[in-house]
Amino acid sequence: MTKKAPVELPADPDDAPLSGELVARFAAIVGERNAITAPHDMAPYLAEPRGLFDGKAAVVLRPGSVDEVAAIMRLANETRTPIVPQGGNTGLVGGQSPRSPGHIALSVSRLDKVRDIDPVGRTITVDAGVILQNVQDAAEEAGLLFPLSLGSEGSCEIGGNLASNAGGTGVLAYGNARELCLGIEAVLASGEVYHGLRRLKKDNRGYDIRNLLVGSEGTLGIITGAVMKLYPRPAGRQVAYAGVASPEQALELLRVAERHASGSLTGFEFIPRLGLDFVLKHIEGTRDPMGEPHAWYVLVEISSSRSEEDASQTMEALLSEGFEAGIVEDAAIAKSIAEADAFWHMREEMSWAQKPEGGSIKHDVAVPVALVPAFLKKADAAVLAAIPDARICAFGHLGDGNVHYNISQPVGADTDAFLSHWREINGLVHAVVAEMGGTFSAEHGIGLLKRDELARTKPAAEMDLMRGIKHLFDPNNILNPGKLVQF
Amino acid sequence: MTKKAPVELPADPDDAPLSGELVARFAAIVGERNAITAPHDMAPYLAEPRGLFDGKAAVVLRPGSVDEVAAIMRLANETRTPIVPQGGNTGLVGGQSPRSPGHIALSVSRLDKVRDIDPVGRTITVDAGVILQNVQDAAEEAGLLFPLSLGSEGSCEIGGNLASNAGGTGVLAYGNARELCLGIEAVLASGEVYHGLRRLKKDNRGYDIRNLLVGSEGTLGIITGAVMKLYPRPAGRQVAYAGVASPEQALELLRVAERHASGSLTGFEFIPRLGLDFVLKHIEGTRDPMGEPHAWYVLVEISSSRSEEDASQTMEALLSEGFEAGIVEDAAIAKSIAEADAFWHMREEMSWAQKPEGGSIKHDVAVPVALVPAFLKKADAAVLAAIPDARICAFGHLGDGNVHYNISQPVGADTDAFLSHWREINGLVHAVVAEMGGTFSAEHGIGLLKRDELARTKPAAEMDLMRGIKHLFDPNNILNPGKLVQF
Repeated sequence: MTKKAPVELPADPDDAPLSGELVARFAAIVGERNAITAPHDMAPYLAEPRGLFDGKAAVVLRPGSVDEVAAIMRLANETRTPIVPQGGNTGLVGGQSPRSPGHIALSVSRLDKVRDIDPVGRTITVDAGVILQNVQDAAEEAGLLFPLSLGSEGSCEIGGNLASNAGGTGVLAYGNARELCLGIEAVLASGEVYHGLRRLKKDNRGYDIRNLLVGSEGTLGIITGAVMKLYPRPAGRQVAYAGVASPEQALELLRVAERHASGSLTGFEFIPRLGLDFVLKHIEGTRDPMGEPHAWYVLVEISSSRSEEDASQTMEALLSEGFEAGIVEDAAIAKSIAEADAFWHMREEMSWAQKPEGGSIKHDVAVPVALVPAFLKKADAAVLAAIPDARICAFGHLGDGNVHYNISQPVGADTDAFLSHWREINGLVHAVVAEMGGTFSAEHGIGLLKRDELARTKPAAEMDLMRGIKHLFDPNNILNPGKLVQF
Repeated sequence: MTKKAPVELPADPDDAPLSGELVARFAAIVGERNAITAPHDMAPYLAEPRGLFDGKAAVVLRPGSVDEVAAIMRLANETRTPIVPQGGNTGLVGGQSPRSPGHIALSVSRLDKVRDIDPVGRTITVDAGVILQNVQDAAEEAGLLFPLSLGSEGSCEIGGNLASNAGGTGVLAYGNARELCLGIEAVLASGEVYHGLRRLKKDNRGYDIRNLLVGSEGTLGIITGAVMKLYPRPAGRQVAYAGVASPEQALELLRVAERHASGSLTGFEFIPRLGLDFVLKHIEGTRDPMGEPHAWYVLVEISSSRSEEDASQTMEALLSEGFEAGIVEDAAIAKSIAEADAFWHMREEMSWAQKPEGGSIKHDVAVPVALVPAFLKKADAAVLAAIPDARICAFGHLGDGNVHYNISQPVGADTDAFLSHWREINGLVHAVVAEMGGTFSAEHGIGLLKRDELARTKPAAEMDLMRGIKHLFDPNNILNPGKLVQF
């Protein structure tokens, strides 16, 4: 069933398969039921979400407690066995994918308890394997909001969100996974537990180990629990689509919205008409929010701490100013919660709507917000010079300067031939990004897919520090080896 | 002029003084005018703000560029010369204090330029030596807000704020220095420059080096520049004092305020009557905000993105609910900007107002917000059992769970005798803090004052990681040696 990855990836490690005896020792820690070796049962843990490559592992372990994770790491450290930690297996850069029959996949999915909610300090303490949506739901039950929100929230897990420092649509108002995290519990390579489950808003006791673990993609430790910030639930929410002529106009509208809404601007996403066409064509139950087509669409969300009416007034005011200033061509305000959800759904399905259109070369870049229009102009020119009929579908978190600059293959083109340009096109786009002081990984991380590019582009002094940190935390290179930083 | 520190500190290093020849080589890098050796001119760099001890250094260097800082570090690394970086010299744990004639103090104060303001992305890029108030002023000139705010903002510098991860009164709504920072430039021990001046809201390229440097108190690198977040200026601001009977009532009022104001609650500080008495007695031009005395005072600030009237309505609404619920005994709303500033001034002068009352044993602790009343009860009992007439003046950032638990000497007591209990009282208070999952350093850092306590109380695995990080970044132990973590 092995297929060739359409993207050129670092070679698979040629480790020998683990001995049956060693697998049995690991299995004994979690119990036979939670040590998966049957190919059919292993498949969901080995598959890569975009189908870029097939995973391989000796066994999938599903520990049921932090103690079991610690016991696994002690044995792994003693026997120099590579461990690949995994949450919901939704990552987009291969960070969670085991790639060798000599490696063990460790799923934290059974660590799925909400440990505590503090409604006064507004914190939630959760196991790493709690599905993001379940964190949101637990907060809602307590009358509070957990604002991290991603397309994959129904299956991704909070431990993976933290390991990859997930972003999503709530970053504009509330920050990314790192900024939402107050405390971390993690099992280190040695099997020792880092006890950092602090519910404190301020704690200046030494170096920031927590933020090293957050975003380390399982290469420095296995996150087993976290304390996350909660927020008051908005009393009112309004969602609208505005049609605008260009990214410049979208950016102008952002400034208008910030002036009117300030902290209550909780969403500002943009989509090109091509993207909307894909969604309307391929995602069931969607419909065009406006009668006439527009070159670009902005999804605006306002959340009021006061009332529905207050949110509504703010939305009306900012769109009115947008109309009067000639920025907004047309707008549609969701008339119900169902319609508001439908508006968001179209944005969230954007990535999936590209699939039926054939191959897609993807980017997850960010530049300073003010430079997004200039970035699009330059990147479009470079890409179209290389592949004249390429269909550029750049969408994303305009308020964060974060563009998912995805390129669908020309109509009728050969998918493999198109995808063979992946690295070349990445090179063109990332050169524009670099010139503008941007990043080629805004929210997806490095994993396997961008590891070599990271090593190529980071200054040597910084790569040395990163390798040094990896060596310090994991001297035997058993934690997710080969990911993020080559050792 | 050497006096005995009232606090038991780690012994001074007994390094030999630097040779004149070596001092001359360093002086040549910055020019003679910026290499200070005259005792009178050195004094401001050697003094410790609380007068806990006298500083010593071979020379104070004042580099005028990042290149000069880098050249100093290259020579320091080659010659194994310890460098003590310093901003505005306002730190309260001795982190910025040079302590040996074999050490060099490096002041970043001449790096005082605002490099760039981006009004669209709302960022400001500054040299490390820009005084905090000048960062605030530059933001204001651009029609924006830089919300970091401390008592010492007129003299502390942004590089020091970042090195110590400063907190202050704006943390409740905007976060601490770390959370306000997008990018960092720093000179490493080798003299290499870490180029991280990114204006990006999202950047997931590898381990979080920036957050290691932030809060590292000059032990991992010398911060020379930073990109900080800016916010829209509030259109309206209201400040009030509310009198309440107890910390429990203050906490109740916090919940009421959060419900009414949500993100526009930009200040929630508490002061005991004793603290107000000290201020009224010792700080010129202050007056009691209310006619009758109350056991506790809460300073509430509301900032509205809409209007003065809107801020006023919110303030009235939350105080009304406080009255009706029997939480608030009386309240005074500032009637002018001048009065609002005067209200804040009383809070900010709290620390200084304690000075004329004799010795003060200080703490900078935080516990989960909900536990602040319980903490005060237990800590008071422990302290008063040890020193029955001690005058406890616990004040601070209630909304962050951060209490400056300061204890003034009994009236008429011998100051030295009282201060000789510093470590003993610290031990009692910090034990209560630890029991509640709190921290003995919420916003001041570790420096010299709390170094040994950190080593005693952090789990061994975490101390090992911290020492490993120090060794990785500074293998020759020349960056602020002996501070934060003993090497």
